[in-house]
Amino acid sequence: MAREAKRRFKVTFPSDEVSVEVAEGTTLLDACRLAEIAIDAVCGGEGKCGRCKMRPNGSFKATPSSFITEAEASEGIVLGCQCYVHGDLTVEILPRSRIGRHQILTKSVAEIPHPIQPWVYKRFVELPPATINDNIADFERLTRGLGTMGLCAPLETLNELSGALRASGWKVTATISKIEPVNEVTRVEPLDRAGTLLGIAVDIGTTTMVVDLVDLHFGSVIATASDYNRQTSRGEDVISRMMYGEEKGGDELRVLARDTINELISRVLRSATIKLGKRPSAGDVVAASIAGNTIMTHFFLGLDTRRIRLEPYVPVAYHMPCLKGREVDLGINPRARAFIFPSRAGYVGGDVIADVLASGMHRSNDLTLLIDVGTNGEIVLGGKDWLASCSCSAGPAFEGGEVSCGMRAMEGAIDKIRINDDLTSSYHVIGGAPPVGICGSGLIDLVAEMYASGIIDRKARIQESGSKRTRASESGLEYVIETKGRLGKGASADLVVTDADLQNLLRTKAAVFAACSTLLKKTDESLDGMAGVVIAGGFGFHIDIARAISIGMFPDLPQEKYRFIGNGSLGGARLALISAKRRREVEDIFEKMTYFELSVDNDFYNEFSSSLFIPHTDLSRFPSVARNRAGRRGAR
Amino acid sequence: MAREAKRRFKVTFPSDEVSVEVAEGTTLLDACRLAEIAIDAVCGGEGKCGRCKMRPNGSFKATPSSFITEAEASEGIVLGCQCYVHGDLTVEILPRSRIGRHQILTKSVAEIPHPIQPWVYKRFVELPPATINDNIADFERLTRGLGTMGLCAPLETLNELSGALRASGWKVTATISKIEPVNEVTRVEPLDRAGTLLGIAVDIGTTTMVVDLVDLHFGSVIATASDYNRQTSRGEDVISRMMYGEEKGGDELRVLARDTINELISRVLRSATIKLGKRPSAGDVVAASIAGNTIMTHFFLGLDTRRIRLEPYVPVAYHMPCLKGREVDLGINPRARAFIFPSRAGYVGGDVIADVLASGMHRSNDLTLLIDVGTNGEIVLGGKDWLASCSCSAGPAFEGGEVSCGMRAMEGAIDKIRINDDLTSSYHVIGGAPPVGICGSGLIDLVAEMYASGIIDRKARIQESGSKRTRASESGLEYVIETKGRLGKGASADLVVTDADLQNLLRTKAAVFAACSTLLKKTDESLDGMAGVVIAGGFGFHIDIARAISIGMFPDLPQEKYRFIGNGSLGGARLALISAKRRREVEDIFEKMTYFELSVDNDFYNEFSSSLFIPHTDLSRFPSVARNRAGRRGAR
Repeated sequence: MAREAKRRFKVTFPSDEVSVEVAEGTTLLDACRLAEIAIDAVCGGEGKCGRCKMRPNGSFKATPSSFITEAEASEGIVLGCQCYVHGDLTVEILPRSRIGRHQILTKSVAEIPHPIQPWVYKRFVELPPATINDNIADFERLTRGLGTMGLCAPLETLNELSGALRASGWKVTATISKIEPVNEVTRVEPLDRAGTLLGIAVDIGTTTMVVDLVDLHFGSVIATASDYNRQTSRGEDVISRMMYGEEKGGDELRVLARDTINELISRVLRSATIKLGKRPSAGDVVAASIAGNTIMTHFFLGLDTRRIRLEPYVPVAYHMPCLKGREVDLGINPRARAFIFPSRAGYVGGDVIADVLASGMHRSNDLTLLIDVGTNGEIVLGGKDWLASCSCSAGPAFEGGEVSCGMRAMEGAIDKIRINDDLTSSYHVIGGAPPVGICGSGLIDLVAEMYASGIIDRKARIQESGSKRTRASESGLEYVIETKGRLGKGASADLVVTDADLQNLLRTKAAVFAACSTLLKKTDESLDGMAGVVIAGGFGFHIDIARAISIGMFPDLPQEKYRFIGNGSLGGARLALISAKRRREVEDIFEKMTYFELSVDNDFYNEFSSSLFIPHTDLSRFPSVARNRAGRRGAR
Repeated sequence: MAREAKRRFKVTFPSDEVSVEVAEGTTLLDACRLAEIAIDAVCGGEGKCGRCKMRPNGSFKATPSSFITEAEASEGIVLGCQCYVHGDLTVEILPRSRIGRHQILTKSVAEIPHPIQPWVYKRFVELPPATINDNIADFERLTRGLGTMGLCAPLETLNELSGALRASGWKVTATISKIEPVNEVTRVEPLDRAGTLLGIAVDIGTTTMVVDLVDLHFGSVIATASDYNRQTSRGEDVISRMMYGEEKGGDELRVLARDTINELISRVLRSATIKLGKRPSAGDVVAASIAGNTIMTHFFLGLDTRRIRLEPYVPVAYHMPCLKGREVDLGINPRARAFIFPSRAGYVGGDVIADVLASGMHRSNDLTLLIDVGTNGEIVLGGKDWLASCSCSAGPAFEGGEVSCGMRAMEGAIDKIRINDDLTSSYHVIGGAPPVGICGSGLIDLVAEMYASGIIDRKARIQESGSKRTRASESGLEYVIETKGRLGKGASADLVVTDADLQNLLRTKAAVFAACSTLLKKTDESLDGMAGVVIAGGFGFHIDIARAISIGMFPDLPQEKYRFIGNGSLGGARLALISAKRRREVEDIFEKMTYFELSVDNDFYNEFSSSLFIPHTDLSRFPSVARNRAGRRGAR
């Protein structure tokens, strides 16, 4: 007797003009996935992040969650991952629960070298057939035809070689990988297949991961895909994730990272179908270049992170072996070599080395400062002859964490804001909809504007203003950025910034500036000699430099000296993929980079304390800010 | 309810003074294995080789076999592998069914280089503990301590490193493998473990396999074990075995080779217990060096051999990748590197290159000829500047095949023989027991003596003599070497050599000599310039050179120019294991060795035809033989 099939129901998402049919008991989050609606669910649907808020209408069963406030519950709001379909439904998704277009930075600026000379290349050869008078072994016949010395081949290549040669009338395409110490024939295909040469560049971020599918003939990106790192469900920040790994064993985290990347690889391969005329297979991806911070790199390879977490913060290794696709368990050719960026310290990882590579600062005669601001701020100073690096625990304030009104740079986020004379605000919202929160660049604007308009003092403490916009709350004073009525649907309160939020922001900007100052001091350099500042990473791309300087976060240099490289980790990974020369430069960067440990550094703590002011205790460090202020005061 | 346990019976082997208890239904062969009595059962106990003949007394059930003659059956002789225990038994093992001490040549002569510098070595280091002011990664701390550049490490080593460092107070022993292109830390052990450094040298023979456990500090052999290649059950010679692989898929043959080697590895590790004071573990074996002919090497790695079997005899590859223990599936450290000797042609394999290495001829200013006589004869000519090689299908005549009275050099084999004036024979039997058959060296003696005493003519045809020792048989004339009554127990007929046997022996000696002559001709060299002749391989060790020359098998040079190196494949493998320099010389040998394909060579066929005489059609090629003959004739 056949078992009764599960009943199926229709779930409609009116705002997206899409319906899907799902089996009874499916979660709303899974229904969204089926409908290809991108949802902010960093925990992967385990009810642990509280982000996938939705308002269903119809027949469903929802598990209560502490992330749903009483007010929200009374409006019928549930967590999408904790709500199960039991009949036809319509579902409204709260704006903040969506992943907007801007959320994951996949853009990166890196000069493509000419000519492109990747460490993986293809050669089509037509070989003389074997005869009794020329009966050397098939592999040596191939290498003779290639005219390349010292090549070897893994057994799988040897196993496919003899058949390929004879099936194709002795015309084959060899894929060769040359990446020290490897010098091998990765693959042999019958006939001329030299046209397609694919690799992937991977940015393993703590929060998000990005994969570029790259045409290795031209160095161009064929497709990009990005998503949350599935590890996030096991801890949002690196520290909690390391603790999880220590408790539960690291393999689960390795598998989650691998699954995330493999899903992205599937997506870029799917996306490449149109450009390439046919869907490339995993086997067509014959090289990988992978950059991540030290901890992510350890997780990805299944290495123990417990000693990075605790003082003296020691990783297992900086340099990782050049592994095969099979060994790193990726959905690419099992024989493809995966280059993994070395780390320089527990908190200056391969992602920072990739930033440097993408910036080109290591090839410059001039002094350059590179700032990668994420949850950790990493700073690199130097040029062609030397590089100095450090890391500071900046905190997630600019990435939507530890700030009540903060959110990531996605649709609904205020990314620019001005405070009017009546202390109301004018702002720009990503996507144009009503605002939901403020992203990093907006927060820098906010602090700058609040200070300029006198709402906060030099210590970032909110001042009584007489306006309704500044008011007392349970936890002290707060400033109302926007009132509830003008916020996105589902907003349950005014959008405010509190004294506590501002102190977090102040500490973050102070840490970044203090790290820059400390590096300058350690290397006996000054801002006068600075040829340029490179801003890399997470939210940097959208920062208003003038305002970041005005709050004392970035050094007071002319704006034209600043440039953005976006996701330098991805950009650097791509460079190291498409250019053997750039790949070798990674080792040069590693070799010439000195690391300064700031966690026990008195200079840093002194600088940090002095930086807990807007812009700084020592105004002479910010002459342009002092001039502007004097000018403005004069104009009033 | 418990199942009834199988009944157990006692099996006694009176000659060996040993009894074992076995379950009902056990074969006699398995009982022998349990009793540690070595039995000649090349088929592995499948009833296919007919060698494990025994005479049981008691309760048993035997499956009839075509290998048991009627006469044998009437005497109660059975195949041990086809006879099942059903009660207490005593068992007599026929002498020819035993594996004698001499059967597998494990002896090899190769000069041990000084100093020993293996490509795997250990270093004990005491590292400064990690502190906040010196917090480089553990792996880079180790390589800094080792003072060795460019090292990498597989993930497993990285995974054991951090724990080992901290468990041992930062004192560890690193095992380093340096074999191009590999330069890696293979293993990290806590505390000082530098004392034990083990590797294995492996000779993968078509019939037999040998494993040496080697102390890499001193280059000395700690233990040796040898056994039949279990593949033999799938075909005794390489051709039938390749055909089996083509039909059934090669993996079965790979597994059988691996199982044979792994059993030998277990045995050498067990044997090493006393010398080392404790039983070494598989993980302690950190290097392997493996030599075999081209076909055995392909089987061992699971590569397809079908194109070696058929013209134009093309292997998949000469050079094999430098694989890890795990990849070659051996019972050694999974990270140990296995060096596999390259082959030079389909029928000039890594075993011949190992012969050359063991002989040292590639380092000599003088011209040397190397002859490895097995089922195939391989000849190498040359010195420091060049090497020329060829192969001839000698046939298994000297290894006990295709000759009715032939057997391997084991207990019961006649290894030396003289024919008396009355045409009876005097002989020496290995082990001193009554004779069972004649091994290779005995056969050379036999042909030489039969010719000298006029029993055979120059074409090796038996002549009517009037003596009872030469008589007619169904298939022509035969010579009675020994009468039944004086043979070992169980002999069912006189020990004879037939015309057909002699023709096989003649063809074999002709092939060897013709190959030597052809190489000399091709390289425009002559015997006058020959500084020495090296005899390698299977039965070479026991050959009486004067007699081999007298039948025209080896070139007519003074005996003092001949030297034996025994199992050169094993000796070469050991040299390449204990000396990085010698290991690199393997590549030199490969590079400077020219291969001549004789299978379609007119010169060879002419030489071969001229050599089908004793000693040769052209007596001037054997001046010493001609002189002796003239002298003898004069004395008569």
